[in-house]
Amino acid sequence: MKKKKPGDDPIYLQVAEGLEKMIGDETLKIGDKLPSVRMLSEEYGISMGTAFQAYYHLEGKGLIESRPKSGYYVRFNLRRLPGLPHKAVEPEPVATEVSVAEMITNVFQRTSREDFVNFSVAAPPISLLPAAKLNKSLVHALRASRNHGLQYEHSQGNPGLRRQLALLAFHWGGKYAAEDVVVTAGCMEALVMCLKATTQPGDTVAIENPTYFGIYQVIESLGLKALEIAVDPLTGIDPQQLETLLQKFPIKACVFVPTFSNPMGSCMPDEKKKALVQLITRHQIPLIEDDIYGEMYFGRHRPRTCKSFDTEGWVLYCSSLSKSLAPGYRIGWIIPGRFTKRVIQLKMMHTVSGTTLTQEAIAHFLSIGRYEYHLKKLRKALHTQCLRYQQGILQYFPPDTKVSRPQGGFVLWVQLDRQLNAYRLYREALKHNVSVAPGQVFSAKGQFGNCLRLSYARPWDAEVEEALRILGSLIRKMSK
Amino acid sequence: MKKKKPGDDPIYLQVAEGLEKMIGDETLKIGDKLPSVRMLSEEYGISMGTAFQAYYHLEGKGLIESRPKSGYYVRFNLRRLPGLPHKAVEPEPVATEVSVAEMITNVFQRTSREDFVNFSVAAPPISLLPAAKLNKSLVHALRASRNHGLQYEHSQGNPGLRRQLALLAFHWGGKYAAEDVVVTAGCMEALVMCLKATTQPGDTVAIENPTYFGIYQVIESLGLKALEIAVDPLTGIDPQQLETLLQKFPIKACVFVPTFSNPMGSCMPDEKKKALVQLITRHQIPLIEDDIYGEMYFGRHRPRTCKSFDTEGWVLYCSSLSKSLAPGYRIGWIIPGRFTKRVIQLKMMHTVSGTTLTQEAIAHFLSIGRYEYHLKKLRKALHTQCLRYQQGILQYFPPDTKVSRPQGGFVLWVQLDRQLNAYRLYREALKHNVSVAPGQVFSAKGQFGNCLRLSYARPWDAEVEEALRILGSLIRKMSK
Repeated sequence: MKKKKPGDDPIYLQVAEGLEKMIGDETLKIGDKLPSVRMLSEEYGISMGTAFQAYYHLEGKGLIESRPKSGYYVRFNLRRLPGLPHKAVEPEPVATEVSVAEMITNVFQRTSREDFVNFSVAAPPISLLPAAKLNKSLVHALRASRNHGLQYEHSQGNPGLRRQLALLAFHWGGKYAAEDVVVTAGCMEALVMCLKATTQPGDTVAIENPTYFGIYQVIESLGLKALEIAVDPLTGIDPQQLETLLQKFPIKACVFVPTFSNPMGSCMPDEKKKALVQLITRHQIPLIEDDIYGEMYFGRHRPRTCKSFDTEGWVLYCSSLSKSLAPGYRIGWIIPGRFTKRVIQLKMMHTVSGTTLTQEAIAHFLSIGRYEYHLKKLRKALHTQCLRYQQGILQYFPPDTKVSRPQGGFVLWVQLDRQLNAYRLYREALKHNVSVAPGQVFSAKGQFGNCLRLSYARPWDAEVEEALRILGSLIRKMSK
Repeated sequence: MKKKKPGDDPIYLQVAEGLEKMIGDETLKIGDKLPSVRMLSEEYGISMGTAFQAYYHLEGKGLIESRPKSGYYVRFNLRRLPGLPHKAVEPEPVATEVSVAEMITNVFQRTSREDFVNFSVAAPPISLLPAAKLNKSLVHALRASRNHGLQYEHSQGNPGLRRQLALLAFHWGGKYAAEDVVVTAGCMEALVMCLKATTQPGDTVAIENPTYFGIYQVIESLGLKALEIAVDPLTGIDPQQLETLLQKFPIKACVFVPTFSNPMGSCMPDEKKKALVQLITRHQIPLIEDDIYGEMYFGRHRPRTCKSFDTEGWVLYCSSLSKSLAPGYRIGWIIPGRFTKRVIQLKMMHTVSGTTLTQEAIAHFLSIGRYEYHLKKLRKALHTQCLRYQQGILQYFPPDTKVSRPQGGFVLWVQLDRQLNAYRLYREALKHNVSVAPGQVFSAKGQFGNCLRLSYARPWDAEVEEALRILGSLIRKMSK
């Protein structure tokens, strides 16, 4: 893919970036009035409309605000974000009465309650999804499908859908064909198929720490052992650390989320991804790359995947549309490299095939370009919400609170006072109809007892602000 | 459920049964002319319409045929069915060049080719499914669903669907509520979840011999060992034999298809089912009951399930709508008894949840009584086809051919000359665009090399007849 030159960007974006830089280096301080739209237009030689667009963009990012009949003011400085949470050091003592498994059940069985402000789920709210357009594609599928979606789908997945999913890899420099893709029921089934294709019960699998609980739970359920590797809040896991561990442990596979890890939100830089792939290729250890959040980036370009550095087929790329488009459609996929044949066999054995109609509908939706259009809006909304939530935490939580700085995805990782027990906080917050995910559930050993995962999927509104205020005051009370 | 008295049946059915008995005891021989419709009506004191209905019924069963401008003639006598195939004795020598796994791939990857007469797949043709009505239910679901089916479904399954599936158990005397049911992606996922809930890698699981290859493949893929128990062509597995084996082997679970086993078509009588459940309950060994064909019965009443004798929760009942209603919708379910909590956890871990819209659509379809209506037609069609195919085999295959006598389901099990290699026959038949399932694939060790599984799912027509004729002549040629 050709890299964009700066000049390719629309003018309003260039103007906005100039202003953002001035806010960043505090040339413009919080509370400062910005030039009027007319002045800005004259100063830069741009139309009033373009000047307005630049301010609108900065407002969307939460950096400036308009005050009625007065103009635009600097509202926030990205430099003033809270400090970063720490990497995992060693298991911290956890003073709780319930097991991690029980916590997970308790926290996530309530997710559908509507009277809650729910910060615990890392999934898009329906309001951010293109429901009407998807309905159209489904009705189209119903009409276009030869047998009304009644027949068994190919085990490998609908050929048209596989072609569209292969084309998505273009965004990160991957060149694949329909034959390289295997459709699954969401990303979780994808991970299970990949683990089964690459390991035997009793094997050791390297995972991130902290990580999504679904990953270590399924590893345990497959009779595998998990070896946890600490995640840096910005750059993810360290390939050198993995190399050291490879000397000591018989690691048979890795499951990592290199782009916007969950819950840390970190993104491995390109050179680290490349080094990781070179390392696992040298050792012939399959890397299962969970890229479920890869399309929800806030920067200008989609981060590359580990798969894009994979020359020998040792990377099994997994993704899904559950976080970006349609959780209830259960569409995930794998590009399994050298394990493709085995993965197809496993899919056939374990669930025969996927749902015919939803695959056909999504194939149609992707083929008419709707997904790209939708993603652009979703990314912008999530970026804005991420910044707003960070401001809210800064405003309402104690000053020593540390917060991750995700460059994509759905969640913030919040580190609180060492004394605080996040599961107790979860239970207290529940009494106020606010739900958060306590840090304990993101490691098999119940570490991170003083951390929270806070989803910013819900668009900012007064209820969200009030919920953050409540959380803040509960934290203050419990830290005393 | 109240048992029907004979007097409950419509009069035409009583008349037809009387005639069937006369054909059975050869009072009426093949080729005999039957009384005219008018004579029949006078003889029995019934209306002409009722008399016609009786003949129509017997014609549907393939017992009589109408000759233009002449009347009805006896066409077939059920007593003249071919002999029954044998139970498995010991592994027979198999002279093939390919592994069983390769055979399975070869045979079943071609299933969607439309220029084939395909006897290899045990699934309903789309022409026998209520496509238009299902479409209506899907569009209804799209409109009625709060979030257009975009949200994650409950891991346990849509509550309305679970209620409807619980009600289906009424037909075999089961009384369950929505909480007792777990929805899965078809019956295969149901079996996998049940096996995972009840066993550890390395455990031994008792299965039928012959059995559906999907069962021993998935057992192997889960790191389990399969112990095969011979199936009687009429009465299925023998609980006493299982009891003997329990003394010798550390069996940790059983996977049986007690009603219309695949490929044998046998149905365990009630007292055997009851004895089996008592046995496994005494030994506290979970019985995974695959009842996927249970609703496709040809007799007057739905056979009871093992689950209906289960008082202690050791039976995990599995079924699906893939064979009876909508393969592509991927709707299966489990009533897991004492393993319910564990099964729900596994479902959550492995695929999170099922497809929201198809679950909603099927819930609607079942709730308005359409399924029952459809099943009545499907059962009748399958019964007719079963008899017609048996006649076809009698007509075109060598006289020593043995054929199963299923009382339900989709398939005939055909035993040929000991010298014949069914996989070679499969390959020869393929050259004539006819596909059959060679017996070898129905046991892990490649037994049954001289058997075929022949599906009668496709309604009888000239092409089917021609395909059977071709098979017959290939068999004669290869047996020489």
